[in-house]
Amino acid sequence: MRAKRIVLAQRPKGLPTTSDFRYEEFDLPSLQDGQVLLESLYLSVDPYMRGRMNDQKSYVAPYNLNEAIAGGVIGRVLESRSAQFSEGDLALAGYGWQTHQVENDKNLRKIDPQIGPITTSLGVLGMTGLTAYFGLQDIGKPQPGETVVVSGAAGAVGMVVGQIAKLKGARAVGIAGTKEKCDYLVKQLGFDAAVNYKDADFREKLNNACKDGVDVYFDNVGSDVSDAVLRLINRGARIVVCGQISLYNLEEPVASTPIPSLLLINSAIMQGFTVGNYAGRFAEGLTALAEFVREGQVKYEETMVEGFDRTIDAFLMLFSGENTGKMLVKVVR
Amino acid sequence: MRAKRIVLAQRPKGLPTTSDFRYEEFDLPSLQDGQVLLESLYLSVDPYMRGRMNDQKSYVAPYNLNEAIAGGVIGRVLESRSAQFSEGDLALAGYGWQTHQVENDKNLRKIDPQIGPITTSLGVLGMTGLTAYFGLQDIGKPQPGETVVVSGAAGAVGMVVGQIAKLKGARAVGIAGTKEKCDYLVKQLGFDAAVNYKDADFREKLNNACKDGVDVYFDNVGSDVSDAVLRLINRGARIVVCGQISLYNLEEPVASTPIPSLLLINSAIMQGFTVGNYAGRFAEGLTALAEFVREGQVKYEETMVEGFDRTIDAFLMLFSGENTGKMLVKVVR
Repeated sequence: MRAKRIVLAQRPKGLPTTSDFRYEEFDLPSLQDGQVLLESLYLSVDPYMRGRMNDQKSYVAPYNLNEAIAGGVIGRVLESRSAQFSEGDLALAGYGWQTHQVENDKNLRKIDPQIGPITTSLGVLGMTGLTAYFGLQDIGKPQPGETVVVSGAAGAVGMVVGQIAKLKGARAVGIAGTKEKCDYLVKQLGFDAAVNYKDADFREKLNNACKDGVDVYFDNVGSDVSDAVLRLINRGARIVVCGQISLYNLEEPVASTPIPSLLLINSAIMQGFTVGNYAGRFAEGLTALAEFVREGQVKYEETMVEGFDRTIDAFLMLFSGENTGKMLVKVVR
Repeated sequence: MRAKRIVLAQRPKGLPTTSDFRYEEFDLPSLQDGQVLLESLYLSVDPYMRGRMNDQKSYVAPYNLNEAIAGGVIGRVLESRSAQFSEGDLALAGYGWQTHQVENDKNLRKIDPQIGPITTSLGVLGMTGLTAYFGLQDIGKPQPGETVVVSGAAGAVGMVVGQIAKLKGARAVGIAGTKEKCDYLVKQLGFDAAVNYKDADFREKLNNACKDGVDVYFDNVGSDVSDAVLRLINRGARIVVCGQISLYNLEEPVASTPIPSLLLINSAIMQGFTVGNYAGRFAEGLTALAEFVREGQVKYEETMVEGFDRTIDAFLMLFSGENTGKMLVKVVR
């Protein structure tokens, strides 16, 4: 059987372009015992993928040239030679930007469509939700009455961070890139305040939103946005470094805030993490997140782009901030 | 009685000069109950004092203009109206750059001269030793076989950090500014390696000294020295920000390493601290340090400048790296 995939044709310099990728057809191998044939329904596109396109050390290995871009996928079983999966079952896989795949069953996690919309397994009840859950609670450790600032607040991770901060009794202040996103955060998700970093008076507005300073900063963005927040940290602040999307497409590092000095002055802590560090606790996180969602305590949003041929567009839209919540590709229009 | 003191005449811009200070005479008040009259024997000059000379938020309040520069002092009791102190007793005080002072007994800690050289109470058995002890162990958490790099390694804090790292079974790599200091660290203090940051091939030498990467970085210096170390950190590295002496005299912040990205890629942690955070555990630290010193497991060094009139010189020598170990002023030549 023939399938389609998107491979890395060359390593992007700066913002990726379509010429950095190549759509190609390939032959799927025949099924072996313990394997299933999957048809991709939804693909995940995530900012961290940009880092894997570079040939440099990171928390996950770089993508190889001429191989498919790996990432989260929701697939439907078309054929099974696995005792665990039947035709029609839904599964979470990691094979990435392909229309189909033959996969060993041990690399799959079955999705129960009764629990909720299946796409949540790539978002709030999947990697992005777990990232918010563990990063905020294990590193940020928000206390009642503290101020938690999250950048990229209208993204898949950020919106969950702010809502969990509220559940912990903290004030949640979001930073996002449009007025609509800011309104959404405050009016729909219950953030105490949201500030548009593109506003000319962003720093002043941020200061006003953080009258008692910043105790926890959950950073998805980096750069100037972070600089503004870091100027406001309180003694003992915790800075959770989850992402640095503003930097991923820069070819040269930019001058940054004198971070060690700020940490020194404030006896503050800055910690980088990746959700994989918490692999042993995913069940705990998913149980808690499912409860939050079921009770309506954590809401989520998805931005869906339709068509496998628009996968790269969807990926690039992450960097222009066109998504609210989890960005997904619906493979078949 | 008349005494002399050094006051802050104006806030320094960049490297302080003698005109930022003023020597003056003043009248000591008469003794009240619970007070003692102290004659200063030794004054401490420390890099952190530079930060207090600026009018900006830091972990200790700024010095006031026209007031004496506060800091650690070893004094001898000339007169006492305290039940705790007799004439001739030695005490640790915090009144700073003065030849004499009238002080309440509750602000003093008695020094037992039987324990060892009294000047250690300003160094290895005082603030700098405690800084090394708590910063390395509580934040750095060195494990056997790990590589601990310390900048400012020939300073009062740095040399204790490296020796405690060795006691914990870690490799100790020092960074200092002269060949003599580097030789001293390796030959006298047992560091596994020491690298001169002024060498043209500093980065290459550092890489060679850290073949297995860097697990703990105890930073007293900042800037380019830190950049070189941060490029070598391992996954899960702990970066202890104790000081940033290379920055204290800069009027403009310099571009720094993209620290959040490095922390993110390596799931690493960077934490600033000040020894005051551990005030409740000083007794524990002093007991442990005294034992290390008594057993010869931790050696120390002092650089003594003689004469109250050379206090400012001694302070400025910290920034040109002329001290090895604790820098002290012997008040009377």
